[in-house]
Amino acid sequence: MKKAKKKIKAAILIIGNEVLSGRTQDLNVSFISHWLNINCGISVDEVRIIPDIEKKIIFNVLDLSKKFNYVFTTGGIGPTHDDITSVSIAKAFKVKYEINKKAYSILERYYGKDKFNDERKKMSKMPAGSSLVLNPSSAAPGFKIKNVICLPGVPSILKSMAPNLKKYLVKGSVVISRSVNLNTVESYIAIELEALQNKFLNKVEIGSYPFFKLGRVSVAVVLRSANRTYLKLCEKQLKKIAKDKKIIILNK
Amino acid sequence: MKKAKKKIKAAILIIGNEVLSGRTQDLNVSFISHWLNINCGISVDEVRIIPDIEKKIIFNVLDLSKKFNYVFTTGGIGPTHDDITSVSIAKAFKVKYEINKKAYSILERYYGKDKFNDERKKMSKMPAGSSLVLNPSSAAPGFKIKNVICLPGVPSILKSMAPNLKKYLVKGSVVISRSVNLNTVESYIAIELEALQNKFLNKVEIGSYPFFKLGRVSVAVVLRSANRTYLKLCEKQLKKIAKDKKIIILNK
Repeated sequence: MKKAKKKIKAAILIIGNEVLSGRTQDLNVSFISHWLNINCGISVDEVRIIPDIEKKIIFNVLDLSKKFNYVFTTGGIGPTHDDITSVSIAKAFKVKYEINKKAYSILERYYGKDKFNDERKKMSKMPAGSSLVLNPSSAAPGFKIKNVICLPGVPSILKSMAPNLKKYLVKGSVVISRSVNLNTVESYIAIELEALQNKFLNKVEIGSYPFFKLGRVSVAVVLRSANRTYLKLCEKQLKKIAKDKKIIILNK
Repeated sequence: MKKAKKKIKAAILIIGNEVLSGRTQDLNVSFISHWLNINCGISVDEVRIIPDIEKKIIFNVLDLSKKFNYVFTTGGIGPTHDDITSVSIAKAFKVKYEINKKAYSILERYYGKDKFNDERKKMSKMPAGSSLVLNPSSAAPGFKIKNVICLPGVPSILKSMAPNLKKYLVKGSVVISRSVNLNTVESYIAIELEALQNKFLNKVEIGSYPFFKLGRVSVAVVLRSANRTYLKLCEKQLKKIAKDKKIIILNK
C-alpha cells in the first residue's frame, strides 16, 4: 500500500430500497468508515443512501466519484432483477457491461459447471476494465472501476472482503481518537469546550455527544486527530477542565 | 393532516462527524423512514450523512429542499460549539439566526431562571420564521422552516417528538409491505421473480434480500405497494411459484 501525505477522503453510496424504507438497519457505514480509518488512514466524508433506480445510481456515482478520492458502493451486485448496480455503473462510465473472465471462472469453480446457471453467471458481469475484489465467503467478487469500489450489501460478506481492498488504496494518515466521558450535561461545559476547540483548531477535532446511562445524562467528549502529541495534550487539558469544574470522569 | 393524491417524497440529512467516523451507529434513518411511511404515507427516497461543516450543511439543505417535498435533518441543535445546524440553515435560507420567543420561554420554564445559562439559551436560537416541533422529553424544541424540519440526533428524544411532526405534513398513500421468506438461494428464483416484477410493474415493488439463519442461506422476498389488492394478488402468485418449485416458505 502506497502512502500519501495529504488527507484521503472517501464517500459511501448505499444502494438499496430496503435500507431507505427502514426495513433493514444499515450496518455497513460504521464498519467501512472505521475499517478505512484504522487500516488505511482514509476518512469517510459523506454517505448517501439511494434506491435501486438506474438514473439515481448513475448520477450519484459520477457526482461522488468527482468529489472524493474513493467511492465505496454497497448492495445491488447479486443475481436478481433488483440488482442493478453493476450495469448502472457501466453506463455511468460509458463502458461495456460484460462477463469478466476471471470472475466467471471463480464462480464456475465455486458452483460447479452443472449448477452454474444464467442467474449465477450474471454475478460475473461487470463494467469492462474492472479489477476484482475477491470474496472469501461466498465467491461472487466485488470490483473496482476508476475510483469506485463495489461491494455487496450483506454485512458479513462485505466484512470478509475488506482485507482484499487494501491493494487498491493509497494510504493516508490514521486518525486516532480518545473519548472522555463526563458525568455532566453539555451546557455546563459548552464554553470551555469551545475555547479548547479554538486552541486546537485544525489540530484536534472535538465533538460532544450526550448519552444516557443508568437513567442519568452524561456527555462523551470525543477528541480526534492524526497527531498523537496534540491529542494527548488536548486530552490532558480536557481532564484539567473537568477537575477544575468538579466533574467526575466516568472512564478514567 | 391534509391528504395529497400524489406520492410525497422526503429526504433525511444526518449531520454529525460521529456517524461518519463510525463511532456512532445511526438508528434514526430506519425509525424516521418507517414512521413516516406508516403514519403519514411519506416515503424517504434519499439519505445523506455529512460532517458538521457549515458550507456542506448549507449546500445539502438547499439541494435536498429543492428535490424533495420534505427534508428531515437530525443532529447539531444542542448547546455546544459543534452544534451548528440551526445557524447554518438560517444562512442557507438567508434569514436571521435569532432567539425564538416561544422556544425561549419553554426552555426558561424547563430549566428555571437561575439555571438558564447562555449555552442553554443557544438552544432557543433558530432561523427567523421557524415553527416549533415540541420536545416532550428534554424540552429543547426542533423546528420547521420552509420544507425543512430539524430534529435532534439522540434517537430516544427524536422518537418522543415524532407525534408533534404530524401537523406540519401533508399525508400521502401509505405503502404496505409483505415479506415472504423462502428457504432457497436467490439464483434459484431470479427468473421467476423478474417475471413477477414485470407483471406487477409500477404496482408492486419486489425486492429480494438474502439472509442467514441457523447457518443456512434463505431469501426474504419483500413486496411493497400502496394498493392492498395488488399486494395480495402478487403475494398469492409468489407463493404459487414457491409451491411449484418445491421451496419451503419459512414464515407461513
